[in-house]
Amino acid sequence: MNNSTNKLKILTQTDERYYQLFEEASLPDLQLTDNSAEADIVLAAPPVLAQCLDEFPRLDWVQSAYAGVDPLMAPGLRQDYQLTNVKGIFGQQIAEYVLGYLIQHFRHFNTYREQQQNKHWKPHFYQTLADKKLLILGTGALGNYLARTASAFNLHTIGVNRTGIPPKDSAFNEVVHTEQMQSHLSETDIVVSALPATPQTKGMFNAAFFAACQNTLFFNVGRGNSVDTPALLDALEQGKVEHAFLDVFINEPISQQCPYWHNPKVTVTPHIAAYSFPEQVFEIFKDNYLRWHDGFQLQYVVDFDKGY
Amino acid sequence: MNNSTNKLKILTQTDERYYQLFEEASLPDLQLTDNSAEADIVLAAPPVLAQCLDEFPRLDWVQSAYAGVDPLMAPGLRQDYQLTNVKGIFGQQIAEYVLGYLIQHFRHFNTYREQQQNKHWKPHFYQTLADKKLLILGTGALGNYLARTASAFNLHTIGVNRTGIPPKDSAFNEVVHTEQMQSHLSETDIVVSALPATPQTKGMFNAAFFAACQNTLFFNVGRGNSVDTPALLDALEQGKVEHAFLDVFINEPISQQCPYWHNPKVTVTPHIAAYSFPEQVFEIFKDNYLRWHDGFQLQYVVDFDKGY
Repeated sequence: MNNSTNKLKILTQTDERYYQLFEEASLPDLQLTDNSAEADIVLAAPPVLAQCLDEFPRLDWVQSAYAGVDPLMAPGLRQDYQLTNVKGIFGQQIAEYVLGYLIQHFRHFNTYREQQQNKHWKPHFYQTLADKKLLILGTGALGNYLARTASAFNLHTIGVNRTGIPPKDSAFNEVVHTEQMQSHLSETDIVVSALPATPQTKGMFNAAFFAACQNTLFFNVGRGNSVDTPALLDALEQGKVEHAFLDVFINEPISQQCPYWHNPKVTVTPHIAAYSFPEQVFEIFKDNYLRWHDGFQLQYVVDFDKGY
Repeated sequence: MNNSTNKLKILTQTDERYYQLFEEASLPDLQLTDNSAEADIVLAAPPVLAQCLDEFPRLDWVQSAYAGVDPLMAPGLRQDYQLTNVKGIFGQQIAEYVLGYLIQHFRHFNTYREQQQNKHWKPHFYQTLADKKLLILGTGALGNYLARTASAFNLHTIGVNRTGIPPKDSAFNEVVHTEQMQSHLSETDIVVSALPATPQTKGMFNAAFFAACQNTLFFNVGRGNSVDTPALLDALEQGKVEHAFLDVFINEPISQQCPYWHNPKVTVTPHIAAYSFPEQVFEIFKDNYLRWHDGFQLQYVVDFDKGY
C-alpha cells in the first residue's frame, strides 16, 4: 500500500542507539531523515514530540517509544495521524520492581543494611509474601504479567477492571469490577496501580480511596496524576497506607520541596520501574513498519478518545 | 507399635509457642515432660540439644526444628537414636531471599535509597534478571523450589548434584554433575549454595572454585563452613566475585573484627534467609508423631553417615 519510499524521523532521548538498530534492520522502502518537513513516520518519545508536533506536514504515523502517550493527548494538539505505543515489554520490569520492593519490605532488607553498617547482628521476625492479598488495577498484559509472577510467591491476586471479566489467559485469582474495588480494600495488603493517565484515572487515589485502606502498601508505577498527594500524605500519617512506593509523579523530577523525599514511609524512585529498552521498542517498530509497508493494520493503536 | 504413653521434651528457642501448639494438637498417647530422664521423644533446636544429649537415658527419637543438624554430628556425640529434620518448608523463604537480593542488586535499590536521602533524582541504566544464568548447588526440594520461582523471572537455572540426573518434577533448565560444575562457572552470573554442613562441603568454596568465576554474585544460604573466607575476600578484591550475599557463617554472630561487616561488596544478614516457623515445624512433628505412634516409617530421617 505504501510502497514508495517512506521517510522516518527518530525523536527520542537515545537517538544514536536507534540509528544503529535502524541500520542493522534493513527495512524495505524506509529511509532515515533529519528533515521534519519530509518525514511521514516518526519514532518518538512522546514528551519530545509533543514540543514540535506541528513541524511535520506529512505526518502519517507515530510510533511512541513509551507506553504512556499522555503528552500527545494534551488539549489543542493535532490528532490527524495514527498513533501506536509499545506494549508487552514491561511485564518483567514491573514485576521485578513490585516483587523486589515487597520482599525488601517484608524481609527487612533496609534494616539489615543499617545493622551491617553498625556491625550489629540482630534477626527480626518476619512474614513471607505467601497468602498476602495483592490488588492490581488494570488487567491488561502488564497487570496479568504481574499477577503471574506474584503467584510464584503464592500471593493472592485480585485484578480490577471496568468489566469484572477476567482477561484472556488470566493469571489472577479473582477479577472484580471497578465498582466493587472499594469493598475489597480493607482486606488488601498491597495495591498496585499501573494505570495510564486519562481523565478517568486523574486523582482516583483520593481521600475516599485511602479511607477504605488498612495498613496497605501502595505502589504507583502508572502515572503520577492518578494520586491526590495531600490525601496520600494524610493516609500515610494515619496508617491507612503503611508505605508508598512511588515511581511516577505529576512533575518529574520532583522538586526539592516535595514532601515525599524525607518521608520514611515513602520510597521514591526516579521513574525507573519500566524502561523502554531501545532493542525492544525497535522490535515493535520493525514489526509495525512491516505491517504498514504491506498495508496491514498496525498493532497497539492508541484511541485518541480513550487516551491509551 | 508405641501405644504406651510417650513423653515429649521440647528444647527450642521458642518453647512457649511450641507448648501452645502442643496443647492445640491433642496428639494421642503423648504427654509433655520437663524431665529429661523420662523423655523418649525430643523436639529440639540442634544447637541446644547438642549441649545436653547425654541427659536423655530413654531417648528414642529426636525431631529437629531446623533443617541443619550439624551440631548433632559432632565427633563423640551419641547416635543411638532416630533423628529427623524438617524439609519442604524453606523454599518460599529462600526464594524470597535470593530473588529479593538479586532484584535489589540489578535494579539499584540501594543507590535509589541513598539518592532519596540526598533528594537526588537520577535514573540509572540497568539490566533485568531475564536470561541471567543461575547455578544452584543442590537439586533437592529447596533448590528445585528456588529454580521454579527463578523461572518466573526468566532466569536460566542450572542445578548441580552428585549424579547429574534431574530431580523428580525438575524445574531446572539443566542439571549437571558436580564434576562438570567448574566448567560452567565462567558463564554463570549467580551461584547459590544451600548445601548442608558435611565433610564434603567443608571449604568447598575455595580459591580454586572462585578462580573459575567471573563477576559472579555468590549467595551462601547453606552453612558457613562451606566457604573459605580468605579465598572469598580475595575473589571479591579481584572481581572474580562481584558481590557476596552471606546469611550463614562459621561462628554466629560474627565477631566485631570480621572483615565482612565493612566490605561494600558483601551483604551480611543474621541467619534469616529461612526461619523455622514453629507452626510449620510442628505440622511436620505432628505428622511424624502419628507415623511413629502407628508404627510407620518417619519422614525426613537423617543419615548419620551422610550428615543430612
